[in-house]
Amino acid sequence: MTTHPAAARTPQQDRSRATRARLLAAAVDCLAELGWHGSTVAVVAERAGVSRGAAQHHFPTREDLFTAAVEHVTAERLAAVRAHADTLPPTGPARTEAVVGMIVRLYTGPLFRAALQLWVAAATEEPLRERIIGLEGHVGREAHRAAVEFLGADESRPGVRETVQATLDLARGLGLANLLTDDSLRRSGVIRQWASLLESTLRPVGP
Amino acid sequence: MTTHPAAARTPQQDRSRATRARLLAAAVDCLAELGWHGSTVAVVAERAGVSRGAAQHHFPTREDLFTAAVEHVTAERLAAVRAHADTLPPTGPARTEAVVGMIVRLYTGPLFRAALQLWVAAATEEPLRERIIGLEGHVGREAHRAAVEFLGADESRPGVRETVQATLDLARGLGLANLLTDDSLRRSGVIRQWASLLESTLRPVGP
Repeated sequence: MTTHPAAARTPQQDRSRATRARLLAAAVDCLAELGWHGSTVAVVAERAGVSRGAAQHHFPTREDLFTAAVEHVTAERLAAVRAHADTLPPTGPARTEAVVGMIVRLYTGPLFRAALQLWVAAATEEPLRERIIGLEGHVGREAHRAAVEFLGADESRPGVRETVQATLDLARGLGLANLLTDDSLRRSGVIRQWASLLESTLRPVGP
Repeated sequence: MTTHPAAARTPQQDRSRATRARLLAAAVDCLAELGWHGSTVAVVAERAGVSRGAAQHHFPTREDLFTAAVEHVTAERLAAVRAHADTLPPTGPARTEAVVGMIVRLYTGPLFRAALQLWVAAATEEPLRERIIGLEGHVGREAHRAAVEFLGADESRPGVRETVQATLDLARGLGLANLLTDDSLRRSGVIRQWASLLESTLRPVGP
């Protein structure tokens, strides 16, 4: 196995990596604020303070840039969620509600807005379509695995897998409902109720 | 109260009404296939076989045309759902599953694709924003009322209102998951499980 310890990186490689990270973060911001049609490589390069030539060196096409951006920021957010999960109540209904809230937050922030713009553009733009289908599958599997783990769900029991899937579908729907208006008050009631149903499905009391 | 019995309509009025209906249907098809950026009044007029002048007489702006189109087709679909509801099993778990399936179908067809394009465009385009917020509120209330009625839900009981809301949020999330790929197989498992949880929440057995 080849390893690349940080100490072996040249200053040139560090600069290139920092440029790439700035482009990816700026691309997600642009998508969320301006939508797919307002988001070009030139707009992102300017926002990131990077020359257009450097941006095109990292990402030859617009599709490359924005797909990589959503993928990268999603991985970052999932890592942050994993770190945050350690601070949740260890078991019981309070944990279930906290986990549902955490999952729903993944779908109600700027990253979801950006991903939604890309997703909806992919429905009508062929060059994006196949890439976003791949990204959607990958992100969906990661989110499902994290949800199973954080909820302590036993998917060998009938209905549990579908209940975890429903939790993620619900989160996506709550994300959509938050797109144009602040839906947080209504959402908190839905989260509380869903967590209660989820708890009794995952950990039924009785014989 | 002034009434306008059909018999009093002139042939001119009938033609105008038919033109309007053709424009609205073509506008929804365009949105679903081409997205907001590909959908102009000119493209819709051509698809509807209507002159651009006539289209602009009915709908002075692009925002007028597409908002009216999604509103009109949603009202048509809700009316169709009401008619179809009479053919469902009258009570019991089979009715609940059929009703959930019917609600989810509202969010997985071409109308949802069109509405989603408009909704997501409204997140970044000011002239659309206020209109779509109004439309979203109106359609959301209608859908909620229909869901309560078809599920026979008693919203005075704790948690029932939020459970009905969650059902509509889930349906929206399932609609998103069906945007780029055919998600029907996975979706049918989620619907079945959701209906079973819903049935035990709406009609708990026991004291």
